Formats: sequence, structure tokens, C-alpha cells
Amino acid sequence: MIFGKRIKNIFSNLKRKPDAIIIKNSSEPYIDDNFFYVTGLDKGLFEGSVATLYPTGKIDLIISELEAESAKKSNANLNIYKNVEEFNEFFENTLSHLKNIGLNFSGISHGDFCIIKDRCPNSEFVDVSEAFAKARLVKDEFEIKIIKEACIITDKVMKMIPDILHEKVHEFEIAAEINYLLQKNGADENAFETISSFGKNTAEPHYSHGDYQLKSGDFALFDFGARFRRYNSDMTRTFIFGKASKEQKDMYETVLEAQKTGFNAIHLGIEAHEVHDAVNSYIDNTRFKGRFIHSTGHPIGLAVHDAGAGFNSECKFKLKENMVLTVEPGIYIPGFGGVRIEDDVLIKKDGVELLTKTPKEFIEIYGQ
Amino acid sequence: MIFGKRIKNIFSNLKRKPDAIIIKNSSEPYIDDNFFYVTGLDKGLFEGSVATLYPTGKIDLIISELEAESAKKSNANLNIYKNVEEFNEFFENTLSHLKNIGLNFSGISHGDFCIIKDRCPNSEFVDVSEAFAKARLVKDEFEIKIIKEACIITDKVMKMIPDILHEKVHEFEIAAEINYLLQKNGADENAFETISSFGKNTAEPHYSHGDYQLKSGDFALFDFGARFRRYNSDMTRTFIFGKASKEQKDMYETVLEAQKTGFNAIHLGIEAHEVHDAVNSYIDNTRFKGRFIHSTGHPIGLAVHDAGAGFNSECKFKLKENMVLTVEPGIYIPGFGGVRIEDDVLIKKDGVELLTKTPKEFIEIYGQ
Repeated sequence: MIFGKRIKNIFSNLKRKPDAIIIKNSSEPYIDDNFFYVTGLDKGLFEGSVATLYPTGKIDLIISELEAESAKKSNANLNIYKNVEEFNEFFENTLSHLKNIGLNFSGISHGDFCIIKDRCPNSEFVDVSEAFAKARLVKDEFEIKIIKEACIITDKVMKMIPDILHEKVHEFEIAAEINYLLQKNGADENAFETISSFGKNTAEPHYSHGDYQLKSGDFALFDFGARFRRYNSDMTRTFIFGKASKEQKDMYETVLEAQKTGFNAIHLGIEAHEVHDAVNSYIDNTRFKGRFIHSTGHPIGLAVHDAGAGFNSECKFKLKENMVLTVEPGIYIPGFGGVRIEDDVLIKKDGVELLTKTPKEFIEIYGQ
Repeated sequence: MIFGKRIKNIFSNLKRKPDAIIIKNSSEPYIDDNFFYVTGLDKGLFEGSVATLYPTGKIDLIISELEAESAKKSNANLNIYKNVEEFNEFFENTLSHLKNIGLNFSGISHGDFCIIKDRCPNSEFVDVSEAFAKARLVKDEFEIKIIKEACIITDKVMKMIPDILHEKVHEFEIAAEINYLLQKNGADENAFETISSFGKNTAEPHYSHGDYQLKSGDFALFDFGARFRRYNSDMTRTFIFGKASKEQKDMYETVLEAQKTGFNAIHLGIEAHEVHDAVNSYIDNTRFKGRFIHSTGHPIGLAVHDAGAGFNSECKFKLKENMVLTVEPGIYIPGFGGVRIEDDVLIKKDGVELLTKTPKEFIEIYGQ
């Protein structure tokens, strides 16, 4: 089974093998998404749940009776508790025979670490966060299939945008509409806070949406994605509402060319930062030098920024087959506006496969 | 200023005062919401940001230049970094003079704890999670004002539901519609995954929504809330689509009466679990004994389950003026259906003020 294979793969990334790896979820939002990587459970909260992974690929879960029905969809051995006493007993039994315990230090709260440490005063603890990250960077066929579905939903919605824009519409209204359309088209939810920004607000990459009303000549930038069965997609398109100025069109064409440069730079075996370096130096050789102020992209999967990584110049991981990345150059001119174009790509032996396919020709929108 | 007052209040909850409290955000979703409690910043991500709180009420922030504009809206002293080196320098400077450091053990990852510990090998660390929780349970006037706004939005949307239900509509379609209406009416987003469940799915309290299509005689249960300026509301109503059976009506009237019992049990100074005990024993004295299978409610605020607490029989906190709680009894009959009624209440000197006001008379809906 695929989940056993994933677990064995995580262990194979570890030089010092622990007896078992414990994933302990706390309350929302402190839920470790690795829990879902190893169980495949795509419905349910699983607050307070514990997963114990063994080098054989076996997995035990400690689960509240409130989520027992959902948990049965996994292949794990289930320990269902009704109250704190029962939870403690299961947890004690799990921990009692472990001398060397693997924990995802980036995904467990320090408080939960202290609880485990107190119960196992003589055990040693190994940080397995990099072993998880390394495993998750390369997607298996089941993951790729789900991510493709998420991308199809995102494409559907992005293509509708030119039809829903009209003069004086507020940024937040279009954000609401996008989230609605994502769900109506099959997304479980929006992958992250949908960005719908107009005019000079587009110059702030982290701005989401507000009260601003669309007017002729504005940039209109949309950055969003569908979350489908816990997997994410992430796409950005920038339009012009009305007739574009030469400056706007120049910015657009430069970003589009920068993205192509990014795609062309992707080759198996190179360091991820080389893609960023190529995109960055492309933009720095235009008159928009210094206007590209963020990473070129990030791995995407169960997390929007999967494996906690973006690929900027400080980033160290080598590109491999079946990684899924975003490529999203942008140019930002404070007080004027910004352009970003973003797609999700799957790395293949002989290049990249575009997973998000909304066309990228320069679009001027003349609303009804 | 209110934020200085909040910070002093947090320190006053500590027997052993640290020199400073450090809040260190990691990447999404590991963002400590206490960061927003002490800064009031209601827009922005603030991944990787650090807040340092001093007993005087003073606050320093270390912030990426990408969020500098947003951060300026706080009263904090800002240290803006452009790259990892600059971040490290600010962080080093902050930590260098601290011998005794307060950390929210439930809100910081073990990995981030290790980073701080490595840099301050001779410092002591104090868990301040309870000091934060105690401060946040009692809301100040600014918080109450924002929560009331969130409740008004939720009420608006809940009142529209009887008009949007129709035969054969899917659960997920109404969930999408609810989220859309929340945002259109001013919410920043839905407070949590909106529950829109029909028929026997209503018997699973943790079920959110799926493909099921509404048919005559079904229960239709909606549990959702608006998030407004980072504060949450949380309301549930259960309707009957078509003509109700006697059993359905009985369940409804019992839950409604149980909720009244809960409201009446709320008095300053009693333990929160006494409210749960009253509601639980009310239901256990009807023929629905054993069918109420979750907590009676939870404090609500910056988190949906604020201060990490629900008030079940294991819960220990005393009710005080200006706490905001949900009261949400339910009856669940597997294979048949469930009823839950939930409102947000503000505890006042002389009783409770209902913040969510959608009427609760039993409603049979005959869709168009």
C-alpha cells in the first residue's frame, strides 16, 4: 500500500533510525499535515490525534470516538478513546517500549514535546522534520492525480474572472465570488486567503483584499487556489481593466518572459535556487531591476508552501522528477502597481508539465 | 493604550516574572494568535515575525520588509529586516540581555524553542501559555465590539438560509453559498470549515459537508461563523425541510430547553463545567439520555476555541464578567439525525447577553 511505502521512505531518509516516529496533533491550527501524508485521511479534524509510524511501514492511530468513523477509511491500526483516561492509557502503551523516538520538531508544539519527554525521561529524541520534507518534495502518482484535480478547479475559476469584473466592484466582492466558485466547482475550500487586488494595491505582494473599487486603467491581480482532498493549487493572473498603458504592458511582457526563463531553467539535478537566480537576473537585466522582491516559487502539495520551502537564493534542494513547484515571478512598483504570473508545474524527465493552464496572453478587460 | 494594558495584564498573571516574553511565529499554520492579541494587527500573515513583550507594556517587533506597511499600524517599536542576516542580528540583540524568557509553550514549535535555547544556553524558560489564556478569556471593550460585529454578520447570513434551501440542493453548495454570503456581508472569511449537513449526516457532530442532496423530511443543520478582524463568531441552527415528524420536533424542543438550562446556569464565579453538568443532566433526564456527546461550548475570540478550552466536565475555569462563550447542546441519533442549537453569549454581572440573535422557534422550510 502507498501509505506503508511513504512511511518506509521517510525512515529511509534517516541516518539514525528511531524505533518509531510519533506525530501528535494539538488543537487547530497546530495540526501536523504529515498526519494526513501518512494516513491519507482527507476528511476530519483529528485534533489531539496521535499517529505512531514504524520502520516496517505499519501505523497505529489514537483517535477520539468522535472521529472513529472517518479514521476507519485509513489502513491504520485504530485505538479509539472515549475520554482523557483512555487516551492516556493508549499513549502510555505506545510510548512505553520506545527508546529512540522520532518527532517532527517543526510540527510539534514545545508543550507537547515536554509532555512526551516527561513520560519518557530516558528516551532519546530525533528530529525527523527533514526526512518528512525530503519525502514530501517528490510526489507519488496518487498525490499528482489529486493536485491535478485541484489545478483543474483553479483553472475553471480563473477563466471566469474576466466575465465577473465590472467597474466599481470592490476587491472583497471578487474575493468572495472566487471562493464561492472554487467550492461550487468541487474545491473543499480555498487553499489560502484569496488575493484580489486592484490598482496600486497590486504592488504589495502580501496584500489580500479590501474596499478598493475597480476603475478603468487598473491592474487587477488574482492569486488563489483550490484545496481538494487536502492538496493545494496556487495560480496568479494579472489583467488590465480597460486600456493598458505602455508601462503596464511592458511590465506584463517582462514578467511573462521571466516566467518562461524560469520554466526553461528547470532541469533535473540542478539546485532549486538556480531557477530563482535565472529569473531574478532576467528581471535585473531589464529596466525593472530590483523590482522582483520575493522568491520565484515554492513546492506545493499538502501545504501551500510544501516542506516549508520557497526557492530563493538561500534555498538548498535539488530538483527531481515528480516535484510540483510554482513559478511566480513578479514586478512591483510602489504607488503604481504590480504584475505577477504564477503557474504550478510538475517536473518530468524531459522538462516541465504545466498543471495550471489558463492562457497567459495579455488581457484587457472591458466590463459590462 | 489597550495593547500595553493587555501586555501588563499577561505579566500580572505570572508568579515568576520573566524579563520578557517572546512570541515567535513560524510558517502557516504555526502562527501564534497571541501575536495579534498584543499587536492588534488585523491584516497580514506575519510568518517568521517575532514580538518581544516587556513587563512595562512595551513591545518590539521583528518584521520582514514585505509586511512593514501593515506592521506600522501597531504601536510597537519596529525592527524591519530584509534578509536572514538582518533578522539574525535583530533576534540576537533582543535575546542577548534576557536571562529569564517567557514562551507560550503551546504556541511555539519545538524546533523554534530549540533555536532560542541554542542562542541562550544560560537563560531560563518559563511557560506563559496559561497567563495568555487567562488574559484572553476575559474580553476588553475593543474585543467585545469586534466580536459583536462578527455575530451581526453571522446572524445576517443565518437568517437568509430558509430562502436558499431547495429540494435536491447538495450540502456543499449551501456551504459555498454561506461562505460567500459571509464575505459579501463583511466577514474576512468563514471562522472555520462551515458545516452544512442534511438528513442522517446531521447525527455526526464533526461532519462538515458532502454530496448529499436535500429531500423532504430531512434535518438541515448549519454551523458556521464570520471571522471579522481576526475575531470569530460561531452559531448553529437546525431546520426541518418539509414536515417534521413528532420525533424530530421532540428532539428540537429538548435541545432548545437544554440551551435555556445552560443560559440559566451561567453565573459569575461558578466553574464552567457546572454549566455543562446542568445541560448534560437536563438531557440525561429525558428519553434522549446519552445522546449529547460533546462539550456544552467553548470560549470564543481570536481562536474559535479560545484559550484552547471547551467547557466539559474536565474543565476548570471560573466564569467571569466579559467572557464570551458558546452554548451549544445537541442530540444525535446515529442513522436518524441530529439537532444542535448554538449561540454566542457575553457574560454580564446579572446574566448573559445573547450576541447571536437569529430566532430559534422551530422552523419547517418548504422550498420553492
